[in-house]
Amino acid sequence: MNGLHYVGSESGRRYEIEQSRWIGDGGELLDLCEFAKPLNREALTDRPKTMWRYQEVLPPLNAGPVSLGEGLTPLVPVSIDRPRLLAKVDYLMPTLSFKDRGAVMLAAVARALGAERLVADSSGNAGAAIAAYAARAGIRCEIFVPGATSRKKVAQIEAHGARVIIAGTREDAGAAARRAAVDGIFYASHVYNPFFFQGTKTYVFEIWEQLGGRLPDVLVLPVGNGTLVLGVHLGCQELLRFGLVDRIPRIVAVQAEACSPLTQAFQQRWPEAKPVRNLGTRAEGIAIAAPPRHKQILKAVRSMEGQIVAVPDEALEESQRALSQSGLYVEITSAVNYAVLRVHAHLFHESDVVVIPLCGAGLKSA
Amino acid sequence: MNGLHYVGSESGRRYEIEQSRWIGDGGELLDLCEFAKPLNREALTDRPKTMWRYQEVLPPLNAGPVSLGEGLTPLVPVSIDRPRLLAKVDYLMPTLSFKDRGAVMLAAVARALGAERLVADSSGNAGAAIAAYAARAGIRCEIFVPGATSRKKVAQIEAHGARVIIAGTREDAGAAARRAAVDGIFYASHVYNPFFFQGTKTYVFEIWEQLGGRLPDVLVLPVGNGTLVLGVHLGCQELLRFGLVDRIPRIVAVQAEACSPLTQAFQQRWPEAKPVRNLGTRAEGIAIAAPPRHKQILKAVRSMEGQIVAVPDEALEESQRALSQSGLYVEITSAVNYAVLRVHAHLFHESDVVVIPLCGAGLKSA
Repeated sequence: MNGLHYVGSESGRRYEIEQSRWIGDGGELLDLCEFAKPLNREALTDRPKTMWRYQEVLPPLNAGPVSLGEGLTPLVPVSIDRPRLLAKVDYLMPTLSFKDRGAVMLAAVARALGAERLVADSSGNAGAAIAAYAARAGIRCEIFVPGATSRKKVAQIEAHGARVIIAGTREDAGAAARRAAVDGIFYASHVYNPFFFQGTKTYVFEIWEQLGGRLPDVLVLPVGNGTLVLGVHLGCQELLRFGLVDRIPRIVAVQAEACSPLTQAFQQRWPEAKPVRNLGTRAEGIAIAAPPRHKQILKAVRSMEGQIVAVPDEALEESQRALSQSGLYVEITSAVNYAVLRVHAHLFHESDVVVIPLCGAGLKSA
Repeated sequence: MNGLHYVGSESGRRYEIEQSRWIGDGGELLDLCEFAKPLNREALTDRPKTMWRYQEVLPPLNAGPVSLGEGLTPLVPVSIDRPRLLAKVDYLMPTLSFKDRGAVMLAAVARALGAERLVADSSGNAGAAIAAYAARAGIRCEIFVPGATSRKKVAQIEAHGARVIIAGTREDAGAAARRAAVDGIFYASHVYNPFFFQGTKTYVFEIWEQLGGRLPDVLVLPVGNGTLVLGVHLGCQELLRFGLVDRIPRIVAVQAEACSPLTQAFQQRWPEAKPVRNLGTRAEGIAIAAPPRHKQILKAVRSMEGQIVAVPDEALEESQRALSQSGLYVEITSAVNYAVLRVHAHLFHESDVVVIPLCGAGLKSA
């Protein structure tokens, strides 16, 4: 497809991009082949004011028709009195979460492959994003969600004409979606399909451009399935490779204490994470007990000399309130990105320029 | 204040811009003096990707600290198969409605005047917007809302630390806010304060820029208190005056049938509207029985050779669904802007480029 192919994450072997392909032989994860060309910074001036402006580093898909104008979200100080602490207001996306960056990519791929139906599984935001872009692309859509998904997220998914199937735990929803993804049905997975990370990587290209061709000292990133961490890692590698930056920011990846398999593995210096039991957290958007890309996430964070830490639920409400009272109303999951500044204050220096992402709008969980 | 002053809409006399000034002597409405300078189109390239890029035509306020990155929202085809019908996705604003364009302006004025407290009245979206920007500006805030305001909008306002006072009808809420706006308290009214329209006028500058320095054939605009109609009128006048366009689009302003005083007056060719009784509509955001700026709105629409029409509530749900199924999830009030295309199809020609605004996010009313 357009000169692209998948690459097995263990074997390095080549797999064609086909509708029914979402995992490699023997269950190995799929990555995307190298294809990015050097980004021409000067040419950005006349480009669309969306994430599609970084065209050299994006997969050659005709995504125009399925675009809803996503990307180039604001980067503003968290509050008037803290000019070095910046919020990337990434909920200002068509479906009100950063997941649109990846979802538009999956819809474009599904359309290019001629898919007439797709399935996905999600705790909510990815489901809403995929449902919206599937609707846009004219592809029938079924979303499998865990029983604990908020009614409002379900309503948002259904509004886009998707069928919602409620299926036990987050893991049950994933298994059910994969069973449904049989021949001729595209599995629009934000975890397994590596095109998703080609979308989320635009997050770091935008920050780089908005800071005048620089990256900040620290990037705080929430981590559950690692869609943002893996995208940022990809983006940072490309910025380095094309000589657009000469160093990578420190990464502080954040989990909720009650469901933190990656934090545990990171702190124990394990090369892989062990599945945990989700003890219950309000940060439902990152409560992933057994993230399939755990090894890649750990490797990516370590290669960027980053940290993975956890914050307790008790810190969330106050953090959400602090952001709201500065004009930024986020859903409770996004509050982890502010909570970490207090809970793990020793990871941040006075002089650091720090960017935190605001991933989902407050009305998602109100 | 910064060389600006108010102008009485009847008398033409000059009023200073002061904290306690929201109406002229004898109850005349206030407008803002002329101050806009010619906009330099070439200079736009390097400007911030927000509504503040049109700096020559915006009031000289130091709004930087209170900005949340508002503006420059996407302009995309309503669906893949209708390239000439464009949606301005104006709910991609910090508080998820287009009201942020005006609210940031009021917060900047209040801050410049040294206000420590402000009050406002709203059916919901303007209240959320003003509460967010007041929080940002460090100004204490009270919002008076009608009893019928959705719980979610109230929750959003309260999240920003504002006090919400529930007060009977929409008109009761307005009266209560004005009683509270005594000495030393700024009345952040999106109806009476003319700075608000300086914000909403950026809507039309953005469309002009996004269409490559052109305006469309038709602009559909919802009308209740006329915040968008009056802003668009101002913006169009300036675009004409500075030679940036040579004609103004046809305006199709839309009300909900159950509360349509402006439609009645327009069709009867009256110079002013008579208050009506709100018979009940789900389009609560534009259900204004007695809009204070009725004469200005009628004059503005007539001067642009526009129309004011009404749509029945029965058309709203299907219109909301049609938009959602194209990936665009709006609150029910915004559905009027799509409904009008079917209900009043004769106002639109096959060849017209038409822009409809999507003013509020679907999660606002879900």
